[in-house]
Amino acid sequence: MNGRSKVYVEGARADIRVPFTEVALSGGEVPVRLYDTSGPGSEPEVGLPQLRAHWIAEREAGGVEVGGAAFPCRTQLHYAKQGVVTPEMAFVALREGLDEEFVRAEIAAGRAILPANVNHPETEPMIIGKHFLTKINANIGTSAVSDSIAAEVEKLTWAVKWGADTVMDLSTGKHIHETREHIMRNSPVPIGTVPLYQALEKVNGDPVKLSWEVYRDTIIEQAEQGVDYMTVHAGVLLRHVPLAARRVTGIVSRGGSIMAAWCLAHHEENFLYTHYRELCEIFAKYDIAFSLGDGLRPGSIADANDEAQFAELRTLGELTHIAWEYDVQVMVEGPGHVPMHKIKENVDLQQDICGEAPFYTLGPLTTDIAPAYDHITSAIGAAMIGWFGTAMLCYVTPKEHLGLPDREDVKEGVIAYKIAAHASDLAKGHPKAQERDDALSKARFEFRWQDQFNLSLDPDRAREYHDETLPAEPAKTAHFCSMCGPKFCSMKISQELKEYAAKGMAEKSEEFLDGGGKVYLPVVETR
Amino acid sequence: MNGRSKVYVEGARADIRVPFTEVALSGGEVPVRLYDTSGPGSEPEVGLPQLRAHWIAEREAGGVEVGGAAFPCRTQLHYAKQGVVTPEMAFVALREGLDEEFVRAEIAAGRAILPANVNHPETEPMIIGKHFLTKINANIGTSAVSDSIAAEVEKLTWAVKWGADTVMDLSTGKHIHETREHIMRNSPVPIGTVPLYQALEKVNGDPVKLSWEVYRDTIIEQAEQGVDYMTVHAGVLLRHVPLAARRVTGIVSRGGSIMAAWCLAHHEENFLYTHYRELCEIFAKYDIAFSLGDGLRPGSIADANDEAQFAELRTLGELTHIAWEYDVQVMVEGPGHVPMHKIKENVDLQQDICGEAPFYTLGPLTTDIAPAYDHITSAIGAAMIGWFGTAMLCYVTPKEHLGLPDREDVKEGVIAYKIAAHASDLAKGHPKAQERDDALSKARFEFRWQDQFNLSLDPDRAREYHDETLPAEPAKTAHFCSMCGPKFCSMKISQELKEYAAKGMAEKSEEFLDGGGKVYLPVVETR
Repeated sequence: MNGRSKVYVEGARADIRVPFTEVALSGGEVPVRLYDTSGPGSEPEVGLPQLRAHWIAEREAGGVEVGGAAFPCRTQLHYAKQGVVTPEMAFVALREGLDEEFVRAEIAAGRAILPANVNHPETEPMIIGKHFLTKINANIGTSAVSDSIAAEVEKLTWAVKWGADTVMDLSTGKHIHETREHIMRNSPVPIGTVPLYQALEKVNGDPVKLSWEVYRDTIIEQAEQGVDYMTVHAGVLLRHVPLAARRVTGIVSRGGSIMAAWCLAHHEENFLYTHYRELCEIFAKYDIAFSLGDGLRPGSIADANDEAQFAELRTLGELTHIAWEYDVQVMVEGPGHVPMHKIKENVDLQQDICGEAPFYTLGPLTTDIAPAYDHITSAIGAAMIGWFGTAMLCYVTPKEHLGLPDREDVKEGVIAYKIAAHASDLAKGHPKAQERDDALSKARFEFRWQDQFNLSLDPDRAREYHDETLPAEPAKTAHFCSMCGPKFCSMKISQELKEYAAKGMAEKSEEFLDGGGKVYLPVVETR
Repeated sequence: MNGRSKVYVEGARADIRVPFTEVALSGGEVPVRLYDTSGPGSEPEVGLPQLRAHWIAEREAGGVEVGGAAFPCRTQLHYAKQGVVTPEMAFVALREGLDEEFVRAEIAAGRAILPANVNHPETEPMIIGKHFLTKINANIGTSAVSDSIAAEVEKLTWAVKWGADTVMDLSTGKHIHETREHIMRNSPVPIGTVPLYQALEKVNGDPVKLSWEVYRDTIIEQAEQGVDYMTVHAGVLLRHVPLAARRVTGIVSRGGSIMAAWCLAHHEENFLYTHYRELCEIFAKYDIAFSLGDGLRPGSIADANDEAQFAELRTLGELTHIAWEYDVQVMVEGPGHVPMHKIKENVDLQQDICGEAPFYTLGPLTTDIAPAYDHITSAIGAAMIGWFGTAMLCYVTPKEHLGLPDREDVKEGVIAYKIAAHASDLAKGHPKAQERDDALSKARFEFRWQDQFNLSLDPDRAREYHDETLPAEPAKTAHFCSMCGPKFCSMKISQELKEYAAKGMAEKSEEFLDGGGKVYLPVVETR
């Protein structure tokens, strides 16, 4: 029995149809609707339907809004500030179960972003902000060592199937443009990039030869394709570089080290910083969101929360406020490797310095000693930092530090981060988060195995693990499992307990023994 | 090249030889010594050497100490209170890198336990307390559905190889006695049990037929075999049972539901509570430590921190203080399923109510929605609760709620919990914890791959993942990895940065360009 199906909830206008995964339950409960990132599905060679094309065209027909300094501005922030609830905002409100006006106000305040390049009409709108569900990002991308386009599109589809809210294409090898084109046309979620990687390819991998012009052209090329947000390492300033010299792990961000190398070679200020306002105008035109890169993030426990990191953060605060002058949406990237007791300081500082712009962190990893398990070392930090106010968590796969993630690694990373995001939603008290836990726990306690599987993050694996010990179909309706065997397990005692509470102790005890004194035990845990 | 070897550090007396795993490093650094739980190794049919036999015999020769009420008392707590540093305490001090007197004082205060049944001389002494390294426990055991003795001994050896500090034998099927005998004789770590499971087998699985006599005989049988600590569900009182009636998941502890069923059937107080002082006398005689079971721990997010749980905790506090009257060592078990924002309250309450007796928690799981990944949902909670003051973390495997863990699941659970324990040691500022992170991160930054692998929690898997993309041996000394390929990666920039800091900016910049302006980038992370 497959109790999962896709449903669409219609908004105030008929072309707003928000997807959910609906889980039918066998215990007589109302079906549970789960947030669904998987997209409508398509043939990879055809691409996805252009859900947002009409909304974008409507706005163009109404005349493109013009920003403060008379440049064209198409951003969701721009509309939000003017009090306009766009169809994208209405979509998001339905998707999150929140009020449209609340969505608009959070975007207008800069506390949330709705990444939606006008050239990426395939996206199903989503929102990134601390007052919404915590989101996760999955990184994919070719490299010089591994460069199949089909494999990357497959990873994209795979990542959103398991719950990735956005995907970053970090390709660095050949065919960067074509790879990205295939990804854009097949992605129902916003796509982020680090344009510096492609710019570097254009100058044959020599950072010294990079220039503003090469970078600008790369930005525009990617903007035309529809990239929704871009990591820009504009906060790595010349004066910050020496601060990283005495670190255990120096500069570990690829973008950060490229820009540090450039600054070092030219003894000039970072061109991303000096040309930042030009970038803002381009971003405003397409509605690209900044993801302000933390090029000096710590790469080890030893380097966490040091002066290099926080000096860059102060620059990112300055850049956040400049982006807002142009009505450009912005989020800020964060670490990295941070021991648990130093995590909260990161969020608090970022929120303070960057005027509550959404924080977007890589993990953080809470220890360095477990390569091959960094999805776990970092899920710990991610859950905590999400609770403390981070809006989006960039996943880490088991291959981090060791190699490029394959399909299975992508899934492991996404699931670990869905766990972290959901745990943080519970802790921050998101009003609807606990529904799913409660429904699953009730199903578990009542031995409704299929309901339990269907409500879980990975029904396939839960079913598979159960079946390893008790493969027969009847076992899935049986009131026991392999932990204790048939003699120990049942939900009977919970019924007993309920009657007990209702009737009072002495009476129940008597009745119990009259009935033969049989007790079945609802054991689903060890110890 | 295998850079790992086993070394022994000798104490003040020659028969105190503490094992460590020594990792030789190729960068000219002092070797790093890692805490080693794997034991000396043996033939399973022969059993391990009896490391502690002489120490125990020495004490017997000196006459058995007599407790306050004139019962024989052989506990480490008893000696500690009298100011005696036993060889076991001296062993532990060397193992933890701490002062002997500190170890003795922590045990004397009840803040730490050193589980060491006089009939389990094979143990290498270890200590459980919040001022020491955070420990982890692995559960193994046969069930009615799966009951191979050889498989359980193999799981034991496997669990300690990967770092389990104690192992609980939770067997419930046939051959409980023989299974345990094989486990005891082959275990270099303390073994815990839940005697109630075997007692229940003796009355054919009918909780109503349980009695103090059957239970007492079971305790003595297990005490004679050498069980080091026992979970005793003496805190589930008659008046607590109705409190669990309105829960989403009622009573999920196996021991808790057995005792609740007994109380319900007999309408009498829990016999473990009414006979608790007799238990204390038996435990004192063998030096068995109490692990006071939390039979009413929450089985779902919905039930966390409720009145049923905390009512039982108050009873456990009372029982802790009674155990101390008898100089019996005691730790207290904790949840279970708890969302992040309710975790700290658990530790704080337990420490307050139980006079700082060590807390020993199962996870906790921070969400219910990820069956098949509960090693991760719970590693998040375990890391946090360890930081907040929990002394030992009971592992959860990917099979939790679904089936019995096999060999691979045991490893996954142990590694996830080593991560949680180590992350908590970093956060609570254990003086030596960060050495390993620093050594590994330095090795990583300098592309000393073999050193990085050897310092990691799972060298085999780290090596395997690396080799998937770059299998050739030269790649392990190459200054790049598969994430970026040969063009991008090196440690050169860190050297550049150091010179830069030393020489000043302008001069270095000039020299840099004179040298051809080549920059190699030390990239080991994505984004």
